[in-house]
Amino acid sequence: MILLEQAKYVVRAADRVEQDVDVLIDGSRISRIGSIDRRTLPEDTIVVSCRGRAVIPGLINAHTHLYQSLLKGRRDDLPLVEWCERVTFPFVRAVLDRAWRAGDTEIGAMWSALATIEMLRGGITTFVDMDMNLDGVIRTWLELGIRGVAAMTMVDQWVPPEMMLSPEATREETLSLIETWHRVPSPDPLITVFLGPSAPFTCSPALLRWITDQAKRFDLGIQIHVSETAWEVDHSLETTGMTPLDYLASEGLLERPVTAVHAVHLTEEEIQLAADRDVVIVHNPKSNMKLGSGIAPIGAMRSAGIPVALGTDGAASNDLLDLFEEMRTAALLQKVATEDPTALGACDVFRFATEFGALACRIDAGRLDEGKLADCVVIDLGGAHLFRLTDEIVPALVYCAKTSDVETVIVNGRIVVRDRVLQTGDERTLLNEIKRVGNRYV
Amino acid sequence: MILLEQAKYVVRAADRVEQDVDVLIDGSRISRIGSIDRRTLPEDTIVVSCRGRAVIPGLINAHTHLYQSLLKGRRDDLPLVEWCERVTFPFVRAVLDRAWRAGDTEIGAMWSALATIEMLRGGITTFVDMDMNLDGVIRTWLELGIRGVAAMTMVDQWVPPEMMLSPEATREETLSLIETWHRVPSPDPLITVFLGPSAPFTCSPALLRWITDQAKRFDLGIQIHVSETAWEVDHSLETTGMTPLDYLASEGLLERPVTAVHAVHLTEEEIQLAADRDVVIVHNPKSNMKLGSGIAPIGAMRSAGIPVALGTDGAASNDLLDLFEEMRTAALLQKVATEDPTALGACDVFRFATEFGALACRIDAGRLDEGKLADCVVIDLGGAHLFRLTDEIVPALVYCAKTSDVETVIVNGRIVVRDRVLQTGDERTLLNEIKRVGNRYV
Repeated sequence: MILLEQAKYVVRAADRVEQDVDVLIDGSRISRIGSIDRRTLPEDTIVVSCRGRAVIPGLINAHTHLYQSLLKGRRDDLPLVEWCERVTFPFVRAVLDRAWRAGDTEIGAMWSALATIEMLRGGITTFVDMDMNLDGVIRTWLELGIRGVAAMTMVDQWVPPEMMLSPEATREETLSLIETWHRVPSPDPLITVFLGPSAPFTCSPALLRWITDQAKRFDLGIQIHVSETAWEVDHSLETTGMTPLDYLASEGLLERPVTAVHAVHLTEEEIQLAADRDVVIVHNPKSNMKLGSGIAPIGAMRSAGIPVALGTDGAASNDLLDLFEEMRTAALLQKVATEDPTALGACDVFRFATEFGALACRIDAGRLDEGKLADCVVIDLGGAHLFRLTDEIVPALVYCAKTSDVETVIVNGRIVVRDRVLQTGDERTLLNEIKRVGNRYV
Repeated sequence: MILLEQAKYVVRAADRVEQDVDVLIDGSRISRIGSIDRRTLPEDTIVVSCRGRAVIPGLINAHTHLYQSLLKGRRDDLPLVEWCERVTFPFVRAVLDRAWRAGDTEIGAMWSALATIEMLRGGITTFVDMDMNLDGVIRTWLELGIRGVAAMTMVDQWVPPEMMLSPEATREETLSLIETWHRVPSPDPLITVFLGPSAPFTCSPALLRWITDQAKRFDLGIQIHVSETAWEVDHSLETTGMTPLDYLASEGLLERPVTAVHAVHLTEEEIQLAADRDVVIVHNPKSNMKLGSGIAPIGAMRSAGIPVALGTDGAASNDLLDLFEEMRTAALLQKVATEDPTALGACDVFRFATEFGALACRIDAGRLDEGKLADCVVIDLGGAHLFRLTDEIVPALVYCAKTSDVETVIVNGRIVVRDRVLQTGDERTLLNEIKRVGNRYV
């Protein structure tokens, strides 16, 4: 058992904060929140003092591409196509050649470790990785103790042929991923398998139909980029006569629970369609800003009742896997886009990064309630930047908290960060190893 | 002397980076950058190892209101007027009543300490505080060792009468501030005095003319909010028949060097006017976003040759005094506003926060060159979030660096933060004291 003792604030959810209480974790679940006498607990209970601190649900990064962490902080002064040609494509080609085809499997473990360290240290307990599933990727998540959703990327058109697997290889790999990691009950509760058709324009109708069939057969979630750019909408109208989400509906994909990533350029009709089909949208404000893609109509989505989760996207277009910054950027961006400072508030975006994130990942977390998965984060409130004269804690967390305030992180009932130190690996050694291996690819 | 030894990168300016060199500080100035043999230096030279680290110019926060740090993280779900009435106005009234009129002067020292701790710990070495100059404010800057520009706020119309000083008191206070702190040479090189007419619509023509006269008489800089909101432009057209910057020019204010804060809604003609009159613009992207004010046309300003500095604005509308976040937000916001990912790059915004900030503050800093003021910051590059496989350091600093990476801060040749610990005061004691006094006002 783990006792989080005497928290100044327990943020069970954006709209439910308790003060001066304890949180008890038993196994992988939250067992009790309230006043708990430690003398009634087993002797080997781990006690974490949370005096003056806030305990919050682990943050959920509902969309990212882990491999891009090896491309952090690379040039930003190139237009998109040139940047792809000079920065991301060479790396992807190197990975495909050396790792996928020639079996140098260390690299997947390396980018997974790099992204996982950044996320855990920043209070992120769950993420969705839309990527190819190289050997070593998921094993690293398990070793470091983060909850991951593996959304196997699938494409069979538009992308340069040397940058994709053959349709047969894609299907084989996908079925193998499902076979290994997706069982009910799961072989490891940390891992969830999703299907990840990359985008409407990169998947043929045949592939989309195959994906829908597998999703039905195995009860899998689907994550797909939709309407990220105005170009994509024009291209869809030209090639299919439909807007992207309409097109996906026409091909049957929306018969299954789908999380639609970006959704920057949805029409009003598509927003209604998304609401009718229980689509969850994943908003990635910093990525949409950096790539100049546009501003998603979050207000209209929320008015239609669509749950909106939050993602950092990959580090090549952000460049941080930092949901505190992402939360405040989401709020600020809607306020300026609508010229209405009340457009999207702190409690809304906190919910995006927690409850709606859990919905997007199909996991039983995102709130601190008895019986929920024990994914939680202890925030040190002592920094000058977090100074408060009132108890309005959620706005303070959203607008002022930083990843450096994350003190302790618990995933699935396991302490993975304590007093800002990773408990499941030696951070310094890992970073040196990542640099050594990464240099073979850049 | 201080030797910053063996820096991996010395970022002299956005476009001038040297690798594996030393920086020597002698008194308040940078004396040499290059390969320096420590055996040739006096025995009492302080040596700071910068192995694997970056040394950068101290960041310059060209616009803020320190008192608002006591209102950090307060509610954001109210429209502007209601938020003023319920959050900021009561505090300002309490300060005027209890501090200004009744002489409880501790409060100014308290908010100054709070903001200064946050800024120094975040690598900000200079700021412009547009505020009333309460006793204790400037003394605290000197004690904690930050370089400050005191821009005495002046208003004589539009603001509720109980929230402003009388015109006579304003003039007296201003002249007293000049008398005490503005001398050539300055009594303390850390302090610069500016005049701070609050905005075109809050100052009568008579006040603006008085300000221009004093600025000429004492050679003072002027900082003023201009065209922050669309409302202000409409109001200006209605009451004066001119847009705000045109109005200021007509009243003679632009005869002096002026830094115009916000400038969100400048017309093309005003941008040309600003360029012609050597106006420096201070961009506050996060504040403009949070208040829903709009997006400043930074591209057009830069094309016209206007220097643009960067400010956090007060903590009540941001809520962080964090120029790393502000730099990346500035870049991202222009990219999305123009739907052009090359619109504003990392090197541009780094220059905003350094060289152009120094210009806005009229100080001889903002670059690491021999003879410049010794305001510099050592950045720990070891965090996973700052991982790089290349030497492109400025994009990495802008998009990935965090205030928690700030290890050592030197202002005017004095080490004020070392190994992330404030050297000029006890941070914990100060924060407790700030809370104790602040609670009397909230």
